[in-house]
Amino acid sequence: MPLFPQPPQQPEHASPASEAQAWRPYRPVPFTAITIADSFWEPRIRVNREQTLPHVYRHCRETGRIDAFKLDWKPGVEPVPHIFWISDVAKWIEAASYSLAAHADPALDALLDETISLVVNAQQPDGYLNPYFTVVKPELCWTNLRDMHELYCAGHLIEAGVAHFQATGKQVLLDAVCRYADHIDTVFGTQPGKKRGYPGHEEIELALVKLYQVTGEKRYLRLSKYFVDERGRQPHYFDIEAHLRGEAPEAFWARTYEYNQSHFPVREQSEVVGHAVRAMYLYSAMADLAREFGDNTLLQAGRRLWNHLCAKRMYITGGIGSSWHNEGLTHDYDLPNESAYAETCAAIGLILWSHRMLQLDCDGRYADVLERVLYNGMLSGISLDGHRFFYENPLTSLGNHHRQEWYDCACCPPNIARLLASLGQYIYASNDTEVVVHLYIQSSVRLTLDGREITVRQETTYPWAGMITIQLEMDEPAVFGLNLRIPGWCRTAYLSVNGASFDLTEHVTKGYARVERLWQSGDRVVLDLAMPVERVYAHPDVRQDAGCVALQRGPLVYCLEAVDHTVPLHRIVLPKAAELVSHFEPGLLGSIVVITGTAQAADDADWEGMLYRSWPATAYPCTITAIPYYAWDNRTPGEMQVWLQAER
Amino acid sequence: MPLFPQPPQQPEHASPASEAQAWRPYRPVPFTAITIADSFWEPRIRVNREQTLPHVYRHCRETGRIDAFKLDWKPGVEPVPHIFWISDVAKWIEAASYSLAAHADPALDALLDETISLVVNAQQPDGYLNPYFTVVKPELCWTNLRDMHELYCAGHLIEAGVAHFQATGKQVLLDAVCRYADHIDTVFGTQPGKKRGYPGHEEIELALVKLYQVTGEKRYLRLSKYFVDERGRQPHYFDIEAHLRGEAPEAFWARTYEYNQSHFPVREQSEVVGHAVRAMYLYSAMADLAREFGDNTLLQAGRRLWNHLCAKRMYITGGIGSSWHNEGLTHDYDLPNESAYAETCAAIGLILWSHRMLQLDCDGRYADVLERVLYNGMLSGISLDGHRFFYENPLTSLGNHHRQEWYDCACCPPNIARLLASLGQYIYASNDTEVVVHLYIQSSVRLTLDGREITVRQETTYPWAGMITIQLEMDEPAVFGLNLRIPGWCRTAYLSVNGASFDLTEHVTKGYARVERLWQSGDRVVLDLAMPVERVYAHPDVRQDAGCVALQRGPLVYCLEAVDHTVPLHRIVLPKAAELVSHFEPGLLGSIVVITGTAQAADDADWEGMLYRSWPATAYPCTITAIPYYAWDNRTPGEMQVWLQAER
Repeated sequence: MPLFPQPPQQPEHASPASEAQAWRPYRPVPFTAITIADSFWEPRIRVNREQTLPHVYRHCRETGRIDAFKLDWKPGVEPVPHIFWISDVAKWIEAASYSLAAHADPALDALLDETISLVVNAQQPDGYLNPYFTVVKPELCWTNLRDMHELYCAGHLIEAGVAHFQATGKQVLLDAVCRYADHIDTVFGTQPGKKRGYPGHEEIELALVKLYQVTGEKRYLRLSKYFVDERGRQPHYFDIEAHLRGEAPEAFWARTYEYNQSHFPVREQSEVVGHAVRAMYLYSAMADLAREFGDNTLLQAGRRLWNHLCAKRMYITGGIGSSWHNEGLTHDYDLPNESAYAETCAAIGLILWSHRMLQLDCDGRYADVLERVLYNGMLSGISLDGHRFFYENPLTSLGNHHRQEWYDCACCPPNIARLLASLGQYIYASNDTEVVVHLYIQSSVRLTLDGREITVRQETTYPWAGMITIQLEMDEPAVFGLNLRIPGWCRTAYLSVNGASFDLTEHVTKGYARVERLWQSGDRVVLDLAMPVERVYAHPDVRQDAGCVALQRGPLVYCLEAVDHTVPLHRIVLPKAAELVSHFEPGLLGSIVVITGTAQAADDADWEGMLYRSWPATAYPCTITAIPYYAWDNRTPGEMQVWLQAER
Repeated sequence: MPLFPQPPQQPEHASPASEAQAWRPYRPVPFTAITIADSFWEPRIRVNREQTLPHVYRHCRETGRIDAFKLDWKPGVEPVPHIFWISDVAKWIEAASYSLAAHADPALDALLDETISLVVNAQQPDGYLNPYFTVVKPELCWTNLRDMHELYCAGHLIEAGVAHFQATGKQVLLDAVCRYADHIDTVFGTQPGKKRGYPGHEEIELALVKLYQVTGEKRYLRLSKYFVDERGRQPHYFDIEAHLRGEAPEAFWARTYEYNQSHFPVREQSEVVGHAVRAMYLYSAMADLAREFGDNTLLQAGRRLWNHLCAKRMYITGGIGSSWHNEGLTHDYDLPNESAYAETCAAIGLILWSHRMLQLDCDGRYADVLERVLYNGMLSGISLDGHRFFYENPLTSLGNHHRQEWYDCACCPPNIARLLASLGQYIYASNDTEVVVHLYIQSSVRLTLDGREITVRQETTYPWAGMITIQLEMDEPAVFGLNLRIPGWCRTAYLSVNGASFDLTEHVTKGYARVERLWQSGDRVVLDLAMPVERVYAHPDVRQDAGCVALQRGPLVYCLEAVDHTVPLHRIVLPKAAELVSHFEPGLLGSIVVITGTAQAADDADWEGMLYRSWPATAYPCTITAIPYYAWDNRTPGEMQVWLQAER
């Protein structure tokens, strides 16, 4: 059985065998083919649909983000449209489209049409589509790719156009973004007369791959590849561009092109650096292009970077980017808890990237990280009521960090909305001979294997319990491999096929149990993943977690909140032998499994007036109650801690 | 015997008995009456004289700070004189004057005269003396006391004038600063037509008391009292002043008048808040005024504030002010080590304040803190060669924090210089019936007790060993009390008088052993303070030190530096039973006592590729070598830690 957590099974430079496998990639199953009926996720998807999407729309409307597409802004009028604004509206369109595909809603359909109509009316005759540059600063158009988010916004519009088409079949926005992409293709490239630029904030690269996938237009794929290939080459475009603006390139506020991952050509990069969201979007596109072009150099770079991030720079919650200075990465093993930035959008980006890597290398490590982020560092980004959002997701709080209804830079709220609305696509994958279950979420999916339609029904109460039942339906018996993920956190798993025990010892490869047989309709596979409370320790070079322990159960990282405790959390020490038990608490925080136990609390009673002394504090027993990290800051504010002091 | 460290012996609201004592205050002995011949401090005072004073002067000259007094700056010329500049020159004059008093130096004497001549030539006919406002922004004179440091600079000029007069008997600068103080007295006060202002950066308050002490002019004392009494009253002067400038008071960048301790009238303040240097200078003046006016309300406020600071907001090094945001205090028990601000000037300010409190209440707690700061958080501010200075004094470094030769805001270098040059005044105190030895520094002093001259000679190798010999010389036998401080860090002390053991059990009050007898010339008192290596623990609410231990020996706080270790410091854990021994290392870092022992180092060998796992790191034995904190960053850069992980 796999141990928790698994050491890497994938060497940095993959063996020929695994490379060979990389070129028989899996297809994720389209979100339109999946129905989620999960007791954990379905309520969240409903809150997303009923609360978050209207909330995000209202804020986009009230702040002027939507009306900006009317192009009627005049100098002197407040608010001035902002360079990021489009992306918020685009992500709302994308999220609303996914939601519509899963849940018919004529009012939302009409609101989408109305909004999209505004957007496409803002398109210029040459295809250009960006209200900020059209009405506020036309003279700056394409003059500052480094800072101005012009291609980033285009990318989100393209993703919105693709999603709306996929969800509704309507082509209005898709056609508009094709025209915009066509225009961008005339501006950028290596051909004479074109600018050899690329985005300061990556995003359009992965969007163009999506656009190619729905249109079949290879120019979009080639444009994406151009942006990725050109990045970081010398002479450096951001230097050239700065000189053209009359600025010294050294005056760049971030002081290093690591900030936007253009310090080296992408294939030469080995360390995940700079702004975390930028990095995740770039690497996602690299994985897409590796797959589309069979580009082994991009694949190798992606594996190298992913290994670096997950082995040295990722919080236990899956959060990444520990510093607010650059909203990003600092140095290896530097994971401060109280000041952790760990932006919600970066967590989402790590889901996007890990999911793409998972299609290339069907390695459970990618799914383990995807799951870690999904249930922890991403899900913490939204309140239970769907109305408040974290931008930063610290692992310790003194009680003064709270979700907000909105942000001036509002990237996170609509990003969570589109992730939740499209969750289905992360659960399953298939190719002609294999069905893969990556995530355990109660759902059903229709797949086509080598021309035959198969329905997979999954029943589970995951993440609260580890029992999963898979039932297959098909018209005729068929031979294929059913691959079920054995999560890295799981030490003991049992599998049975139609009631007969299946020996996993010989049949688990890279985190997946594979059962190949002549499957018949009604076949039932039961997977039982033991889910005890686990103590987790960090690498000894993570100085901020030295002497500390975290609690995890299944995929969920736990935390302590002041509201459940009578002693300040920072005084609690978890003894080695402390028994930790879990039980289901219906009604608490939307119904959760809590972990309880008896710890020790340092006593301050005999310290009166002393700040330092020559003998340590004494301790007395105290009860601790841990809740899933994602659920914190939904009750009375107070201290929160993921990492607890541990008895050595 | 006192335990280490002592709980407070002084309740927040002092008993009548101790109040009564407060009004028989001690006199510190003037720096001109003391000769230091100490193996620890004399080399530092020599480096200060030979290296630091010329270094500070050269930088003041090269940066334009001295030439600014020529008043020949013209608009457009760089550098523009800065509002703080005067204070750096003034502190250099003050430091050089102290140095001159102890060590004749005709060249320095001449340089002082030359510099002072420049300074006084910049004085305006009305007494005003500030080149910035005279030539750069005359229209802003006295318009922004909150931010512009005008009265702060005046205070440092006054201190310089007093020191130069005391050291040399020359009155040129003293006369000039008297004229300036006279002018300021015409501008500020409660009388009709005067501004009811006070400094945004306190300093002049304590300077005016010094000016009164050398001139006997009570107006200066009353002006100081006015500034202190007026502070924080409503309507708030900084509000009024902001409105007069056409600014909204709420636009104050610091957002709170806590920043400059004007949020309440000073007698109503209970917590040490805001900018740390500002706070220390204010409280020092409050202690001065409490003494001069017999003002019990100021004394009570001072005790309350001092107790708050030392019980809740002081680093083990005596550093204060944990945040760079406000260069000051945050909240109780918030003492981050890596990001500690702990400005050198704030440490010096705490010495100034504690010394003044010690004259009011002869309580060893004040001397304990004074000593803690002196040997640790202040002394760390300067390199062994006297050429480089810390502004911030963190307690943990990753190896990237280093002393600098100079700062644009260069308050710390000349502040250390004046502290070192005037060190003698902190060692002894007396009144008509008592002689007090506060600090153990090899030296001799001439005192006058009730008209009789007594010489006290102190021999010691403190802080390396705890043996101190006091020898008395006098013309005729005399009865008086000899009070020797038993430091709070000391658990076991022995005292003998002329070879006969003296039972301390009944004769130690508030940290001082008192021997009263008919003293004769040649009498010898030997005090032996046991000085083992001590483990120190922080209050359980200091979350940053939870599970950690620091090492102290005598008054010295120790730290580990990477250069002495083969394992990263953050991986080291000190076992409970680890034996720690000390030995003298001649030649190392100017000759120091090092502490060595065997600890455990967390092993990273079996973590390959893993960031988190379900079992803790194993450990292997490693040797540790601790050096005095003040001496860090004088060798190969690398990690430094005061607080070490401790086995629980």
